[in-house]
Amino acid sequence: MTAPHPRLSINQATIKKTTVAEALRVATEAGVGAIGLWREQVQDAGLDESARMLADSGLRYSTHCRGGWFTAQEGPDRRAAIDDNRRAIDETAVLAAAGAPGSRAVLVLVVGGLPTGSRDLVGARQRVADAVAELAPHAAQAGVTLALEPLHPMYASDRSVLSTLDQALDIAAPFDPTVVGVTVDTFHLWWDPDVTAKIERAGREGRIATYQVCDWKTPLEADNLLSRHYPGDGVIDFEAMTRAVEATGYDGDIEVELLNQAIWDTAPALAVTRTIDAFDRAVAPFLAK
Amino acid sequence: MTAPHPRLSINQATIKKTTVAEALRVATEAGVGAIGLWREQVQDAGLDESARMLADSGLRYSTHCRGGWFTAQEGPDRRAAIDDNRRAIDETAVLAAAGAPGSRAVLVLVVGGLPTGSRDLVGARQRVADAVAELAPHAAQAGVTLALEPLHPMYASDRSVLSTLDQALDIAAPFDPTVVGVTVDTFHLWWDPDVTAKIERAGREGRIATYQVCDWKTPLEADNLLSRHYPGDGVIDFEAMTRAVEATGYDGDIEVELLNQAIWDTAPALAVTRTIDAFDRAVAPFLAK
Repeated sequence: MTAPHPRLSINQATIKKTTVAEALRVATEAGVGAIGLWREQVQDAGLDESARMLADSGLRYSTHCRGGWFTAQEGPDRRAAIDDNRRAIDETAVLAAAGAPGSRAVLVLVVGGLPTGSRDLVGARQRVADAVAELAPHAAQAGVTLALEPLHPMYASDRSVLSTLDQALDIAAPFDPTVVGVTVDTFHLWWDPDVTAKIERAGREGRIATYQVCDWKTPLEADNLLSRHYPGDGVIDFEAMTRAVEATGYDGDIEVELLNQAIWDTAPALAVTRTIDAFDRAVAPFLAK
Repeated sequence: MTAPHPRLSINQATIKKTTVAEALRVATEAGVGAIGLWREQVQDAGLDESARMLADSGLRYSTHCRGGWFTAQEGPDRRAAIDDNRRAIDETAVLAAAGAPGSRAVLVLVVGGLPTGSRDLVGARQRVADAVAELAPHAAQAGVTLALEPLHPMYASDRSVLSTLDQALDIAAPFDPTVVGVTVDTFHLWWDPDVTAKIERAGREGRIATYQVCDWKTPLEADNLLSRHYPGDGVIDFEAMTRAVEATGYDGDIEVELLNQAIWDTAPALAVTRTIDAFDRAVAPFLAK
């Protein structure tokens, strides 16, 4: 069995069926150094209990997944979303503080799609900027970085009106980079003819809060949300993207986040082993350290 | 029944199960003024016979669909693809000459995805530019415009390494706009945060060879190629995109091209009637004339 690369982090979405306790155990038993947990599972276990277990595990905390979903127009739904994001920021701070040295307080934001019945993509995108402006002071106070995640344009209507890295960087621009950054995810950005230049910009502006790797393969799954594959199993040029991210000086953990029914149907320990191997072959060779 | 808008053209993909003869009959019986045919059906009917029937129909010819698929590395496959595109150029010239006044000799190009086993997106994109350079003299001689079509990024690996309008315009730039232009298709481009500026650029550079409209709706079909909907049935802001195209001075036919199993299962005459109605409601109000 391959020893896990020291910068590999397992995102809990890869082992979606696990509780927090199980996810931590599987990761530590495999020798992985870091983990990113999902809010639903953390809430099921309780935040304080999750933090205690995380501290006991000795794992670094890489990201908290996830906030966002704030494209609704002003009204009770939008207020509820903003409040929920404030709670997510607080959770992130607690978990990052409980993680081993090197943990990062990064809250990944999937911003949401068009409100039902709306065709106003421009307005929805503006409301993302407004939500970030509203949440930034709370994030700054909590010491948490909001990591805006551009999603693949095939999700533009139903999951993320944020579709390119430049869009995310433009929204982040008014804020301190420690408060608002971006998520660079290979699956979402690989197709972009300007992705290398955009990653370089993200680095220059100090905005890369997390780097996530997974592969793209066709035909896509019938549920295209579940089409994320082990690095190396698809067509993404991990060398080009990883070298671009490394060239910015990003030296944090690198998450593997695989939403994929076949992987979810695998025993979690096996999925982690396969992730370690895939990372070692497809990503690790291009890391500066 | 709504009278068809004078600029509406039926793309044969909308009534995929028709022969050329049937497609022409259905379009003329509905009072539509223009049509775009597909190569497979034209070859089934024979090129000369198709041209004769088109001339008899009194319809304008709006586009010939389609050429492209030339991302292979140098070798027999690439040579075959280039030769096939030369034939497609010749077919386009014959059919456009047979169409009613106002016909355009436009060959739509879907460039193709990554070759099997390749991860070299940059190389594949360069080979698209090389193929265009190789075909441009033949197109110029034949009086045909090659219409590079950026496809939605969800097709970047398997159908089109050309994903944005700027990419298409950059490849077109070295050539006369009457020889190399672009296809503006709402379904493929609606998500782009800069789409309006890019359409403006396409107009400024004289490159809009055809405008195609169809709608985006989620969840996508399991086969995401077949997720194209009647204008108005989804989330695309046809006002914004259509006004942007009109503002460039584009005054040609506007095609409705719907790859959708449910529509293919409809009687062709009914699909055309529904297309006429949809166009009238969702697109026509924003046309300058």
